[in-house]
Amino acid sequence: MTIFGIDPGTDRTGYGCVVSEGSRHRMIASGAICSSAAASFSDKLLKIHAGLAALIAECRPDCVAIENLFHAVNARSALKLGHARGVAMLAAAEAGVPIVEYTPTEVKRAVVGYGRAEKAQVQAMVKLLLGLPAVPTPHDAADALAVAICHSHLSHPSRPVASRGGRRTAATDWRKFKLARP
Amino acid sequence: MTIFGIDPGTDRTGYGCVVSEGSRHRMIASGAICSSAAASFSDKLLKIHAGLAALIAECRPDCVAIENLFHAVNARSALKLGHARGVAMLAAAEAGVPIVEYTPTEVKRAVVGYGRAEKAQVQAMVKLLLGLPAVPTPHDAADALAVAICHSHLSHPSRPVASRGGRRTAATDWRKFKLARP
Repeated sequence: MTIFGIDPGTDRTGYGCVVSEGSRHRMIASGAICSSAAASFSDKLLKIHAGLAALIAECRPDCVAIENLFHAVNARSALKLGHARGVAMLAAAEAGVPIVEYTPTEVKRAVVGYGRAEKAQVQAMVKLLLGLPAVPTPHDAADALAVAICHSHLSHPSRPVASRGGRRTAATDWRKFKLARP
Repeated sequence: MTIFGIDPGTDRTGYGCVVSEGSRHRMIASGAICSSAAASFSDKLLKIHAGLAALIAECRPDCVAIENLFHAVNARSALKLGHARGVAMLAAAEAGVPIVEYTPTEVKRAVVGYGRAEKAQVQAMVKLLLGLPAVPTPHDAADALAVAICHSHLSHPSRPVASRGGRRTAATDWRKFKLARP
């Protein structure tokens, strides 16, 4: 299964594509779509949409996994983030690829085994699971890879979670494929 | 000047296109892009984007005026609204049309002459200014037309505002063309 993870943001949208074969993960793309601070807001949206559309066409994923944030942001930040998320989801929908969403807590629980894990722990686990020589940069790319790995773990409930204690996914962790509906 | 107004929303996105010639306004299109409650969120975004792209290509506006909301919504609603606004702005940006933004208060002040006017007053003024036999429906379409008229008024500072007292736009009401940057 090929999963394309997205960590959306107006200034920097991270992406990471992972091929999961059984218990193995392989990274086939990662990076971030960045805009200069001087770019107009609409130009930033254009760049995110066009960039993701090209990457999705190239990677041909089976699904797109995207981070979902509902809390810890005020209405203004949420509105701004919504624009980036909207054009990112549009790029996936235009390509006919199903979209799945996970909260940061779900990603941490699925990747590290603990929903309140530190960002550095998640990044270290991404490096380990993908067999990379270093943590992928920028951190938005690592976050996007974590969302992709999260979906791989949660869509295979019998697979052990790569957690410190080698814990298995609890039954409550299992989440069915759900079409994006914030 | 042809102005395409948008009142974005995930379930219903209002639009209205106005041609302003001197002190006269003429409506050339209005309506709403509606999605059924059962549609997936990504399908709603697809429909908004494709619908607006087709309308903008048909109307060939000189600019797109869009309502801007920063307050009176919680983070969750703002995030959801942001998705609709994002794909709406993308449709305009892809067509190479400049985007201008106005808050509801600015729209009311420019159309009715009073920033705290009731929704019904704004709709009645839209009907009057466009010489329509009735208030355009649904209300999202009337709101989109109001945003378009607002831009027409504010980009002609010497023109009298169609307010109850025939007041003129104050110097402080004048707002230069501003590229969208929430």
